[in-house]
Amino acid sequence: MIRVGIVGGTGYTGAELLRLLSTHPHVELRTITSRTEAGRAVSDLFPSLRGTLKLCFSQPDSNSQLSSCDLVFFATPNGVAMQSTPQLLQAGVRIIDLAADFRLRDACLWHQWYHREHTCPDLLQQAVYGLPEMNRKAIATARLVANPGCYPTAAQLGLLPLIRHGLVSGDTIIIDAKSGVSGAGRSASVGALFGEVSESFKAYGVGGHRHLPEIRQGIACMSSPTSAPFTGELVFVPHLTPMIRGIHATLYCPVKDRSVDLQALYEETYANEPFVDMMPAGSHPETRYVRGCNQCRIAVHRPQEGNTVVILCVIDNLVKGAAGQAVQNMNIMFGLDEQAGLNCPALMP
Amino acid sequence: MIRVGIVGGTGYTGAELLRLLSTHPHVELRTITSRTEAGRAVSDLFPSLRGTLKLCFSQPDSNSQLSSCDLVFFATPNGVAMQSTPQLLQAGVRIIDLAADFRLRDACLWHQWYHREHTCPDLLQQAVYGLPEMNRKAIATARLVANPGCYPTAAQLGLLPLIRHGLVSGDTIIIDAKSGVSGAGRSASVGALFGEVSESFKAYGVGGHRHLPEIRQGIACMSSPTSAPFTGELVFVPHLTPMIRGIHATLYCPVKDRSVDLQALYEETYANEPFVDMMPAGSHPETRYVRGCNQCRIAVHRPQEGNTVVILCVIDNLVKGAAGQAVQNMNIMFGLDEQAGLNCPALMP
Amino acid sequence: MIRVGIVGGTGYTGAELLRLLSTHPHVELRTITSRTEAGRAVSDLFPSLRGTLKLCFSQPDSNSQLSSCDLVFFATPNGVAMQSTPQLLQAGVRIIDLAADFRLRDACLWHQWYHREHTCPDLLQQAVYGLPEMNRKAIATARLVANPGCYPTAAQLGLLPLIRHGLVSGDTIIIDAKSGVSGAGRSASVGALFGEVSESFKAYGVGGHRHLPEIRQGIACMSSPTSAPFTGELVFVPHLTPMIRGIHATLYCPVKDRSVDLQALYEETYANEPFVDMMPAGSHPETRYVRGCNQCRIAVHRPQEGNTVVILCVIDNLVKGAAGQAVQNMNIMFGLDEQAGLNCPALMP
Amino acid sequence: MIRVGIVGGTGYTGAELLRLLSTHPHVELRTITSRTEAGRAVSDLFPSLRGTLKLCFSQPDSNSQLSSCDLVFFATPNGVAMQSTPQLLQAGVRIIDLAADFRLRDACLWHQWYHREHTCPDLLQQAVYGLPEMNRKAIATARLVANPGCYPTAAQLGLLPLIRHGLVSGDTIIIDAKSGVSGAGRSASVGALFGEVSESFKAYGVGGHRHLPEIRQGIACMSSPTSAPFTGELVFVPHLTPMIRGIHATLYCPVKDRSVDLQALYEETYANEPFVDMMPAGSHPETRYVRGCNQCRIAVHRPQEGNTVVILCVIDNLVKGAAGQAVQNMNIMFGLDEQAGLNCPALMP
Repeated sequence: MIRVGIVGGTGYTGAELLRLLSTHPHVELRTITSRTEAGRAVSDLFPSLRGTLKLCFSQPDSNSQLSSCDLVFFATPNGVAMQSTPQLLQAGVRIIDLAADFRLRDACLWHQWYHREHTCPDLLQQAVYGLPEMNRKAIATARLVANPGCYPTAAQLGLLPLIRHGLVSGDTIIIDAKSGVSGAGRSASVGALFGEVSESFKAYGVGGHRHLPEIRQGIACMSSPTSAPFTGELVFVPHLTPMIRGIHATLYCPVKDRSVDLQALYEETYANEPFVDMMPAGSHPETRYVRGCNQCRIAVHRPQEGNTVVILCVIDNLVKGAAGQAVQNMNIMFGLDEQAGLNCPALMP
Repeated sequence: MIRVGIVGGTGYTGAELLRLLSTHPHVELRTITSRTEAGRAVSDLFPSLRGTLKLCFSQPDSNSQLSSCDLVFFATPNGVAMQSTPQLLQAGVRIIDLAADFRLRDACLWHQWYHREHTCPDLLQQAVYGLPEMNRKAIATARLVANPGCYPTAAQLGLLPLIRHGLVSGDTIIIDAKSGVSGAGRSASVGALFGEVSESFKAYGVGGHRHLPEIRQGIACMSSPTSAPFTGELVFVPHLTPMIRGIHATLYCPVKDRSVDLQALYEETYANEPFVDMMPAGSHPETRYVRGCNQCRIAVHRPQEGNTVVILCVIDNLVKGAAGQAVQNMNIMFGLDEQAGLNCPALMP
Repeated sequence: MIRVGIVGGTGYTGAELLRLLSTHPHVELRTITSRTEAGRAVSDLFPSLRGTLKLCFSQPDSNSQLSSCDLVFFATPNGVAMQSTPQLLQAGVRIIDLAADFRLRDACLWHQWYHREHTCPDLLQQAVYGLPEMNRKAIATARLVANPGCYPTAAQLGLLPLIRHGLVSGDTIIIDAKSGVSGAGRSASVGALFGEVSESFKAYGVGGHRHLPEIRQGIACMSSPTSAPFTGELVFVPHLTPMIRGIHATLYCPVKDRSVDLQALYEETYANEPFVDMMPAGSHPETRYVRGCNQCRIAVHRPQEGNTVVILCVIDNLVKGAAGQAVQNMNIMFGLDEQAGLNCPALMP
Repeated sequence: MIRVGIVGGTGYTGAELLRLLSTHPHVELRTITSRTEAGRAVSDLFPSLRGTLKLCFSQPDSNSQLSSCDLVFFATPNGVAMQSTPQLLQAGVRIIDLAADFRLRDACLWHQWYHREHTCPDLLQQAVYGLPEMNRKAIATARLVANPGCYPTAAQLGLLPLIRHGLVSGDTIIIDAKSGVSGAGRSASVGALFGEVSESFKAYGVGGHRHLPEIRQGIACMSSPTSAPFTGELVFVPHLTPMIRGIHATLYCPVKDRSVDLQALYEETYANEPFVDMMPAGSHPETRYVRGCNQCRIAVHRPQEGNTVVILCVIDNLVKGAAGQAVQNMNIMFGLDEQAGLNCPALMP
């Protein structure tokens, strides 16, 4: 059994991590910390876990508990994980950060987008970006994994086959992404009230969103040595849609080459991936097809036989876009079956 | 492995049964029939099952497949199961009907509420009403189980402790129940369109709902020999609430005796029940606490220290109110761990 | 033109009041105060009013603006209106308080339920409870109107005909009420986040809700001198349903007398009421039938010809349950057509 | 008073038309036909109109009623209006078709996208495309107006300023549009059930949607004689979002010229338009800002100061995207104040 600790577990990402880990066959959940809820039973805050999880939240300062874990997940706001990561690594604990502290390799860029100094910039190079479909081997031996953002997961999985084969032929890739409201977190805010977001739809952060540099970095890494890298413009517009879970990324890529069988290319790329499902040609994946499960489902279209390829890509933002991918990374890091604890089908309807 | 067949699997109840059975450790799903979808891959109709279930729908007429099963579930409209049940029982197959064909013991009453002649009234006495918390022993040896309706499950679990101990002292019990829209099924109808039921709330069937006689029969069965049975009026008003899953039953019972510790009584009654969770005093269970899981969560109140006891009772109408309870019944019938395949926590948020 | 001021207009009730008043033919909206938003254009906070309303929020302390109004609405949290009401009345301004400061006539009771001392208990007797269907005459000449709570509006309109005619024959009336989430206000709170209340249903405040004494007081006032008052138990259970607007009250009343034609009684009672619509026998009113409009729609049932009468009653909690009723009261107070500014049909779908 | 008739009024577009016309100060609603509902009170089908509208549905064949109208609206499925339009025009009746029968000028193109022969292709040239912001003058004198589709309305209003000034410099315009479910109509269909579309998001019709040729035709018409027309690729991907009303179009246009002040250009273009609201720079319009009203609200962005301009455009698909625009066209055709009957602010929350 892997001894696991969680730092911060009162948000939606934490709740989802608890749901997945509480029935994972190889995990012993030893400690979960929360400054605000210390002493309270986890199942009191999340009654959905009554009868499943007996743990109480503990003070985050009692690090001894964390140091004795094999693995610690950080499900904290940005900027928290980097405070304790060095000591924990020192103590031999492996780490998966579900926040953004280690997602960008460039400390300047991180500073620019997260508006504060990174406290352990040296670890940025050491951290492995936890997208298994790109970095499985490196993840297996990583001591520190940066779990990808939700939008970047959907966008990168949708773009990977095209980028890797150097098929993007124009100068602009457009990522029009739509997310459920749980992506905004579980903090009290007027903007996420039911009365504000139900029966409404909006774009946000059009001027610039933190997931943009993360996607850009990912695309740069995907390029194969033999094909031309994509050097054009990346436009990313996130939207809020009135549902709890789910991300739908609609990707627009200029691909002039008509000789490539895109359906076959995508199917081939993901043939052995347990959590990427290439749907039949002509499909329109719906976010409910992945509700509560770790799958990413993709369809690829070339409307009107034109120059623009449209990729439709759905994930559950809290699972493949956060906690589920973290568990997948854990499975890889500890040599377990990659699907362990993640084989529950989506909840539909 | 239990060899299992499903008749009718294109509705929400069938979809949920497929979700639960597809990962059940002791089930081999052998056949699933559908007149309208015969030949089509199940995962084509329900893409949430892609990668989990390889089966295709087959013609319902090829009964040979069904006859070779240990157990057949009927997830069909009312009146279908009674057509083939006699032959299948004859062939040694055990049956769980998720529709209403065998829920009422009285054929006249059945005729009155379901507006047609029952084709095998003799089986009504033989059928066991599949509410494990009431009938566990009989279910274990039953050849034919009538899986309870969704509202009756919530109502009966909420009332059981009071009725069994003869504590209802007035002449009227009120069941004000609220259901998510999946209870209306997956058939095309204007009344269940998103545009009609979203952002709206209504009562329906106030004049009379088929679950009323079922609840009445259940209450009659609950009374213990030593306490006075409840002979008063039962008022049942179902409502439609704009969500997919969930039933919330609010039960109003006159209980004059103040000496009883109701919280203790309920906790005691359900102490050993794996799927009934008595919440702490003062709680307000929410339907999301049971979304996608087989739990029933209950709280009991006596507002203003008055004569009316208010019981709050939540289930997922598709799980404990249908497919989950059917799997629970199967587990009991085949001597398995009652929780096998049903230990996934609720999906929250 | 009536010169109107609004104190506090940043919540949902205030927003709705602004929507209704901005197109009211006889209103000149002169000032709207908000401590937090002073200086900001109202249409900046509520872009739905862009092009309709040019006003900016002003500091609440500059009372001179308010004193020069004919009428001031308080759309503030409980306990605010009572601070400035005496001075404004002194200055000849008439007042409609949409909060609870003047709803209860008994200062002790108010203290008990609102947990603070009332600062002008003498005004409690002078204030007129603004339910036009009960108090139209008194409202016409009132200087201070206490606009009813949302639940009490629905409950009282549903009960009025039975109580007035002394038809309730048992000892318990049950009010099972369901509200949309806007009833919880526009303040940031985890409990009202989309991620918490969407796709879920719950009861709350079963132990005791502030609208209970208000309904009880209303019922006492309804009794006619010639018929026995209702002295029994009132059980009120509010619920939260995942929609923005709407209240559905399901009322359960013991009525033994079968000789009364309830449908006729209700139709008669409300024959001349512009905002109460008695639906045909057998109807099930839906909250969307009144979305955005000031109507209350009612249906009355006697299920199974039993002793319990079930009344179904729907309003829009923000309109007839708050701002619309306030405008209706204003119309009465100033001798206008009672329907002025309130004749927009419901938004359906 | 304008004597108005409606053909087909049982869908959502018809219901919305009824809502708007029932309180329009210059309209006398004389007849509304429906084959399926003939004889039934309109307010029985749409109880939201109880007390507002007294009309009953009549048989569509009794054309005499229609012939005596000044104006007839067709709120029918595609292909119905073209059957009776010639006779009605002959009889001197003016017509607004809310369906697609007269939207495309090219009969071959119409045949290709609507899969049947047009029955009066000669009228295609005579029909005026009813987008007032483009064609106000022609609408004023038109005898036959083709009311635009919902997506085309949003897309064209968002693109108009750029196209008219020949500012699109690349070869691809992308229209990523999201619609509420009422756009799918009020017919019974599994795909529009609450259980299928709530808590889910999907693209549809990526291969080709009928609104694509309509938008393409509109763009061709917008080009000014002095600037180069846009001859590139138009990619249109519609999506379904779980809400009843609202369209959000996100438009991506290559605009290399940095010297243009886009905000000023848009403000100027729409300065005198009563129903297009250019929001402040940096805004993110939400569909709830226009719920139930005839406004189109627009914001324009240039993310990362790049080559791609992003235009955000919201309308209520049933109002500015259908019935409201039809009423606006009527107002123009009959020389009324263009805003008559359309000045109700949006319903928010």
